[in-house]
Amino acid sequence: MTKIAILGGTGYTALELLKILLRHPAAEIVAVTSRQEGDIAVAESHPSLAGRIDLRMEPFDPASLAQRGVECVFSCLPHGASASAVALVLERGMRVIDLSADYRLRDPAVFARWYGEPQHDPENLKHAVYGLPELYSDGIRAARLVANPGCYPQTAILGLAPLVANQLVDLNDLIIDSKSGVSGAGRTPKLTNLFPECNESVVAYGVGNHRHTPEINQALSDAAEQPVEVIFTPHLIPMDRGIFTTIYTKPFGVWPPLAQVMQVYRDYYSEDPFVRVIENVPATKDSAHTNFIDMTVRIVRGRIVVLVALDNLVRGASGVAVQNFNLMFGHDEKTALW
Amino acid sequence: MTKIAILGGTGYTALELLKILLRHPAAEIVAVTSRQEGDIAVAESHPSLAGRIDLRMEPFDPASLAQRGVECVFSCLPHGASASAVALVLERGMRVIDLSADYRLRDPAVFARWYGEPQHDPENLKHAVYGLPELYSDGIRAARLVANPGCYPQTAILGLAPLVANQLVDLNDLIIDSKSGVSGAGRTPKLTNLFPECNESVVAYGVGNHRHTPEINQALSDAAEQPVEVIFTPHLIPMDRGIFTTIYTKPFGVWPPLAQVMQVYRDYYSEDPFVRVIENVPATKDSAHTNFIDMTVRIVRGRIVVLVALDNLVRGASGVAVQNFNLMFGHDEKTALW
Amino acid sequence: MTKIAILGGTGYTALELLKILLRHPAAEIVAVTSRQEGDIAVAESHPSLAGRIDLRMEPFDPASLAQRGVECVFSCLPHGASASAVALVLERGMRVIDLSADYRLRDPAVFARWYGEPQHDPENLKHAVYGLPELYSDGIRAARLVANPGCYPQTAILGLAPLVANQLVDLNDLIIDSKSGVSGAGRTPKLTNLFPECNESVVAYGVGNHRHTPEINQALSDAAEQPVEVIFTPHLIPMDRGIFTTIYTKPFGVWPPLAQVMQVYRDYYSEDPFVRVIENVPATKDSAHTNFIDMTVRIVRGRIVVLVALDNLVRGASGVAVQNFNLMFGHDEKTALW
Amino acid sequence: MTKIAILGGTGYTALELLKILLRHPAAEIVAVTSRQEGDIAVAESHPSLAGRIDLRMEPFDPASLAQRGVECVFSCLPHGASASAVALVLERGMRVIDLSADYRLRDPAVFARWYGEPQHDPENLKHAVYGLPELYSDGIRAARLVANPGCYPQTAILGLAPLVANQLVDLNDLIIDSKSGVSGAGRTPKLTNLFPECNESVVAYGVGNHRHTPEINQALSDAAEQPVEVIFTPHLIPMDRGIFTTIYTKPFGVWPPLAQVMQVYRDYYSEDPFVRVIENVPATKDSAHTNFIDMTVRIVRGRIVVLVALDNLVRGASGVAVQNFNLMFGHDEKTALW
Repeated sequence: MTKIAILGGTGYTALELLKILLRHPAAEIVAVTSRQEGDIAVAESHPSLAGRIDLRMEPFDPASLAQRGVECVFSCLPHGASASAVALVLERGMRVIDLSADYRLRDPAVFARWYGEPQHDPENLKHAVYGLPELYSDGIRAARLVANPGCYPQTAILGLAPLVANQLVDLNDLIIDSKSGVSGAGRTPKLTNLFPECNESVVAYGVGNHRHTPEINQALSDAAEQPVEVIFTPHLIPMDRGIFTTIYTKPFGVWPPLAQVMQVYRDYYSEDPFVRVIENVPATKDSAHTNFIDMTVRIVRGRIVVLVALDNLVRGASGVAVQNFNLMFGHDEKTALW
Repeated sequence: MTKIAILGGTGYTALELLKILLRHPAAEIVAVTSRQEGDIAVAESHPSLAGRIDLRMEPFDPASLAQRGVECVFSCLPHGASASAVALVLERGMRVIDLSADYRLRDPAVFARWYGEPQHDPENLKHAVYGLPELYSDGIRAARLVANPGCYPQTAILGLAPLVANQLVDLNDLIIDSKSGVSGAGRTPKLTNLFPECNESVVAYGVGNHRHTPEINQALSDAAEQPVEVIFTPHLIPMDRGIFTTIYTKPFGVWPPLAQVMQVYRDYYSEDPFVRVIENVPATKDSAHTNFIDMTVRIVRGRIVVLVALDNLVRGASGVAVQNFNLMFGHDEKTALW
Repeated sequence: MTKIAILGGTGYTALELLKILLRHPAAEIVAVTSRQEGDIAVAESHPSLAGRIDLRMEPFDPASLAQRGVECVFSCLPHGASASAVALVLERGMRVIDLSADYRLRDPAVFARWYGEPQHDPENLKHAVYGLPELYSDGIRAARLVANPGCYPQTAILGLAPLVANQLVDLNDLIIDSKSGVSGAGRTPKLTNLFPECNESVVAYGVGNHRHTPEINQALSDAAEQPVEVIFTPHLIPMDRGIFTTIYTKPFGVWPPLAQVMQVYRDYYSEDPFVRVIENVPATKDSAHTNFIDMTVRIVRGRIVVLVALDNLVRGASGVAVQNFNLMFGHDEKTALW
Repeated sequence: MTKIAILGGTGYTALELLKILLRHPAAEIVAVTSRQEGDIAVAESHPSLAGRIDLRMEPFDPASLAQRGVECVFSCLPHGASASAVALVLERGMRVIDLSADYRLRDPAVFARWYGEPQHDPENLKHAVYGLPELYSDGIRAARLVANPGCYPQTAILGLAPLVANQLVDLNDLIIDSKSGVSGAGRTPKLTNLFPECNESVVAYGVGNHRHTPEINQALSDAAEQPVEVIFTPHLIPMDRGIFTTIYTKPFGVWPPLAQVMQVYRDYYSEDPFVRVIENVPATKDSAHTNFIDMTVRIVRGRIVVLVALDNLVRGASGVAVQNFNLMFGHDEKTALW
């Protein structure tokens, strides 16, 4: 039984994490911290957990966590705040899965450019492993610090990895058009996230400057073994959860028939239980509340169009975090996620 | 051409009012004020108005409004703030339609009890007319100050008026169950109004203590010519706009057949263009974006069940405000609303 | 490992049942039948099950089910069709949980009156047990045939049982106003269930004549030990899943304070893991995708208002079906449902 | 007063057309035909029109329309059926605005290839004018037969016209990613359009083979004065109405700064009241229920990204139909649409 602490327990990813870990046979949640809430029950902040968890929100105290035998800390804190806390728990020997962006970008200068502030913990950054299990599972197993991947990046990276790893498409011509439910914007009240603003509306945002862009570039550059820069446009969709990503690529030279491209995908993910390469176009509803990432491919006028769907809170955040936990602590990758 | 000013121009009712008044052949909007926004274009605060209005938000200045010949002021300010502003424009001879709750309750003590603060302008309150045209049109025509009615109260009052005015039901047994879209909660960011909190959810709120209750009681007491107190439960529904109200009443003695009850309703509203007494159960969608209030009646185990629907932003607020304006300034009641 | 068959595998309740049973450690799904679909994979009809189930839809053949050792049949067929199939599998010694309405009403004459056709299997009806575990668990444990309860009725019955069983309220004055997501209307294409008809709209339907009424009456009459007839109005809400029920009751004589009423509820459900008697008003979102039924009580002008929420597909249908299965086959009631 | 008939009166575009024409000071609706409905009131098929229109649905009878002095026929019939009816009314001298796809593609062979059936009226096709006012207003003014444009094509064509007409982008690299509300799929019950299928989900459909593709190609080829073929992917979004289109283009050579591109757009549409070239990214909500088409431009890694929004039922169908009517009959283009 691994003792777990969750930092930043009031948001949507924390709630999703709590739900998954409560089903995990080898995890015991011993602490949930919150900066905003006072001494309230976790189930008061998250009424859906009534009767399922007796803990109360507590202030973050790394010494106390260590003393209580916490071995693994999930941080659901916002970037910046997360690095500060993560450094303190790493120092005490706990392993960390950080759901913020703080340790995703290897180069602190890239972080500084996109986030408008310095990376707060460059020392630990050196040892952080990017927590996308399908591409970095060896590193994850051994890691003390896993940088849990962003929701959009997973669709873009896993949607493109088979093509770029096999040098099948022009790396200067990768267009990623994503559509996300509103929970991805978090639980902090903002005008743009009010129901009457989002409902019955679609809008693009962060056009050309969304912070998930360098994360996509970094992982695809790894896969391609050369620098990759993508064009990425996210859109806000009136639904709670789900991301649908449509990717437009330009193949080199003459292109094999669709069946062969599909086979490239099937081969690439043959060992990955959570990637479903399917015949039909995936709907976000079909992966909702699961850790699956669904994808298919179409050929349109000589382009490869890749269509990818996942649940942004489960596979896009807390589910993949538990998948990482399973790898780090030697459990079956699917535990609590199937 | 009547010159108009709108106070509190950033919310949903102000936007709806602007849209309706821009179509009004006899109204000219000369000022829109805002406390929160700086010197920005009205169309920047409300992008749907791009290309349709050139005004900028301005601070509230009653002298300037008077000087520019404003004859009618619509206040979309919150209660409390509204009374303070309204007193100043009344003083300068402008007529006012107040969309806040400040002048709806005749008895300042009742206001104080339900709103937890004193009514801020008892002097003008004495002359305010409750702006529900189907019941108070004579007063409205002559009024200097109209208290525009609440959205829920209109469904309850107009749904029950034919029954209570004709002494057909037990006044101690009036149960009003209302379902409202989220725009009724306003445009101020609050956790409970975030898309991921409201979407895919229904919840009751203000059970037994919603502030629209005394307003319903007051108007029904007028109609019944004796004190009436209702049981009122509002619910939040994942949609932008619309209120559906289901009313349960207990008739006295033997009850006439449904056809006769329907006739009571048709007779009662025979002169009212915006009340549609219909055969089918009204869906809120069928009155959305209109000034209609739709209703029908059913008999269930000897009870009369009244089913009422309207658009909370148009008929529930800004549409009825323009209907009041039309009455006050001698226009056809339907102008800009048909 | 109990071998399971599901009849009528294409609808929403069948999908939900499949998802729950795939997590059940002591259940093995060996057959899924469908009348409409040809020889297609279950995962083709339900793409969310891709990679999780290898079965294909098959025609209903009771002999084959018996031969393959099926011990428990869940019928998700429509009423009428269900009784015909159920009779055949009971005959072969399989136990049945019927999710249709066919065996819910003890009196075939009542069935005939509300459903406009005779009850098709009066012989087995005599032995059917109404599958509401909180009220009928002893019968369920021993039953060969469980009539799984309707979604609305569970909210009304469990919301009222503590009051009527304790003779605290007037049985002639029970008003039940329910609000349901659209999945309750099934997966058969109908104009009224199209997205653009339901979205951004609320409407009442079946006012005074919804078929769940006699089911509510029957169970409450059991609890009250005298005949009960309720007034029940369901409404369609633009959301996938969830039912919120608001119940208005009139207490006898002087009424104890709210705290005492809450205690009545807590005592009544003290042994029932899936009933959560809570302080706050339940939102349907907080029980979504769970088998919980959440409720609280308020006193409004001397009336008791009960507020109840559940997920219509899980607790309202397939979750409670598995809860019944657990009771029938000696598993912990919470297995696969917690 | 121009006498109007509407063919195919039961769908969403017919309803929207009725609403707009009821506000039109120079149009009188004298007939609404329906194949499916019997002799029912128009307001029974469309309850939102209760009290606003007294007509009943009637069978299509071109002689009767001519006899009653109908001068303009709007056909809301499905393609195929529409051409058959249109030929008959043209023969009797009435002018026609056809909202179906029957006359949009000049080359009957292209129609046959994309629609899988022959174009049914090649004779009249020769004289049909594509009804996109911003590009073809001269032809529309004089036309006897206007082929009202598709909803998606308007976003793609108007979003790209300034770039292709000015030879600023590579015509082999036009990627159009569209997101549409569900009303675009029509009012015929289909599984894929049920609320619980669409809600909380996004999915692409018609990838590479949507029938609006050749319509986009044809109009852009006109604008470019050379053949253009686009890559077009539509997506279904859980909302009633609205289309958001994101267009990715590759400029030739060195590219002018954003301000200059914006100026190209403003100049191109300087005379077009319904095209709003705006600074902010348009949300579909801001053009909902209007005839506006909103657009802006961004530069991302050297590409021009164009972002376009409109209401698919108004600007995408019935609003632009009335705009065409206004041009054909000499009214101000904005009549009934402002």
